[in-house]
Amino acid sequence: MEIHVTDIPTLDDVIAAQGRLLNVAVRTPLVRSERLNALTGAADIYLKPEMLQRTGSFKFRGAYNRLLLYAHEHRNQHLGITPEAAAGAHDHQGHDHTQHDHHHHSAVSYPPASVVAFSSGNHAQGVAAAAQMLGINAAIVMPSDAPALKIARTKELGGEIILYDRATESREEIAERLATERDAIVVPSFNDPHIIAGQGTAGLEIIEDLCMIGTVADMFICCCGGGGLASGCALGFESLVPDCEMIVVEPEHYDDVTRSLAADDIIGIDGYAPTLCDALQTPKMGELTFAILSSAGARGVVVTDAEVKQAMKFAFEEFKLVVEPGGAVALAAVMAGKVDVKGKVVVVMLSGGNVDPATFAACLV
Amino acid sequence: MEIHVTDIPTLDDVIAAQGRLLNVAVRTPLVRSERLNALTGAADIYLKPEMLQRTGSFKFRGAYNRLLLYAHEHRNQHLGITPEAAAGAHDHQGHDHTQHDHHHHSAVSYPPASVVAFSSGNHAQGVAAAAQMLGINAAIVMPSDAPALKIARTKELGGEIILYDRATESREEIAERLATERDAIVVPSFNDPHIIAGQGTAGLEIIEDLCMIGTVADMFICCCGGGGLASGCALGFESLVPDCEMIVVEPEHYDDVTRSLAADDIIGIDGYAPTLCDALQTPKMGELTFAILSSAGARGVVVTDAEVKQAMKFAFEEFKLVVEPGGAVALAAVMAGKVDVKGKVVVVMLSGGNVDPATFAACLV
Repeated sequence: MEIHVTDIPTLDDVIAAQGRLLNVAVRTPLVRSERLNALTGAADIYLKPEMLQRTGSFKFRGAYNRLLLYAHEHRNQHLGITPEAAAGAHDHQGHDHTQHDHHHHSAVSYPPASVVAFSSGNHAQGVAAAAQMLGINAAIVMPSDAPALKIARTKELGGEIILYDRATESREEIAERLATERDAIVVPSFNDPHIIAGQGTAGLEIIEDLCMIGTVADMFICCCGGGGLASGCALGFESLVPDCEMIVVEPEHYDDVTRSLAADDIIGIDGYAPTLCDALQTPKMGELTFAILSSAGARGVVVTDAEVKQAMKFAFEEFKLVVEPGGAVALAAVMAGKVDVKGKVVVVMLSGGNVDPATFAACLV
Repeated sequence: MEIHVTDIPTLDDVIAAQGRLLNVAVRTPLVRSERLNALTGAADIYLKPEMLQRTGSFKFRGAYNRLLLYAHEHRNQHLGITPEAAAGAHDHQGHDHTQHDHHHHSAVSYPPASVVAFSSGNHAQGVAAAAQMLGINAAIVMPSDAPALKIARTKELGGEIILYDRATESREEIAERLATERDAIVVPSFNDPHIIAGQGTAGLEIIEDLCMIGTVADMFICCCGGGGLASGCALGFESLVPDCEMIVVEPEHYDDVTRSLAADDIIGIDGYAPTLCDALQTPKMGELTFAILSSAGARGVVVTDAEVKQAMKFAFEEFKLVVEPGGAVALAAVMAGKVDVKGKVVVVMLSGGNVDPATFAACLV
């Protein structure tokens, strides 16, 4: 797919997403500790704890933003409202009046909106939770060998689980087939403008909260799988805090984004090496996330599983937070000295906390 | 000590404390989960995660409020400003202009303010952190057999540690002697109007946040040692949400508040039985906390260590939060069916997360 310039979301899309998520998503606070500052020599390090988000990771933000917009499109399509007319219902503050007037059309009946997603992890739960809240049918394509707990959690959130065999089937093909059969859309996990804009609301909250205390970030450090969260946040930082350095962090063996940004071209990796960071096992970033992160001048660094474990233990001790391995790579990069934070005001993203008890307990000893 | 009616703090004191803590304390969010609602039959349960507060527990709130006020008194005293003149510097919004005009008096030099506290746990860290931020000398009286980690943490926060022998010495006497020698005040851990008002800011945040989403609490459930947090929050709920039921939760063997509220008289207990909830081993509540909780119609319930462990595990799995045993009793009461939450909007306090890794890991299996 070629990128059209209009596909790349902007700060305006992030701001609009923030309006949609108000009082729906958790506005996670920033937390800090003198001990981490002393340990690293940073002027101040602020952590954004997105494991406190609904479903235990930032993924809910993008999913809800995407699904709410789709619910509107679906309804308008069934009611014969053209995109042009629907656009006229938006006022200049970006508020969408159409979401509040369901009752005007209550006499008209149409089939519920339907979405398909594939993910064995946080995106599955984010989509299922958002679909449940919005009355949308969600089918989640998951590998038959996915952890039973993750399948159970996605089911609890009302998702219909479609299992497939990793060895013989393609999840993309299954998802596309289901979408055609059900007149549904496929909700990508990162390479989608509305997903990116939704994840970017986390970055906007960071910028606002620092502004409130009269501080400006010198550096933003974010975990990176496909780059949805990092690029969404980059939209805010690039526009509002242009001097802020953007660092993305990947686990060893999954450094495709680090390589792509260095080469200024999308480079895929094999992606079969073992890693503790299951949430970041993305072999190739997307064209949208690449375009945004390149434009923001982001660069990548890589951390090891051992460094990730240390960061998880530290987050437990000092911040009383449960961070999953993939969610801890940015903190790991800071603690392992992979980035120079000396004297700087730094923001570190902790993206999620969906880790099983045994793995977590093993990091504490 | 006889209680004078003016010693009992009011909602105004909580609001003033909130002003002092703005952008200093973490404004902790409310978090919720459909799974907990489904499990308990509640209409909605919101958790207040105070382990995200500075120093890992709510104790920082009261300590900072108390110490900031004391820093003003100390300065005024040394500059010859009378309490009446200082009171005139407060405007009608409760803002205190005196805290911003240190530079007017920079030519006058006087000894730094000095405080003494005794605690082996969260209060010690709260006082040390607040003192460090305010340039106050803090001496913390701790038992010589206190965990090395807690002593080290309090030292890291700039506290001077005074060790005593539990078997042969009285910490109250040592604290009083030090206070006299150093012209310092003793900062009590709960029975103090400014400590109570400071802790109450957590309750005010809860009420404000629920108001934002158009919800009103039917029940507030709070852990209880000496009752500082519970009574501080009660000040807000009693004034602003008078129909809200107030429940305090204690660990087995430490049910003095439950008994006191039932008997309408302060009843002490022996307080030597073992409990996982080290933060709640208070043998007797204070006169101020009793007066406030009685007036608010609070009643107590008791949970076992086994119930506490289950709640800690659930908070890990569902909320990605590290809760210490004493901080988990309110959630334990809900999960164990000790309170009837069916159909109600309920707020549950999670007061802190200072638990050692081995204890925590043992709760996960």
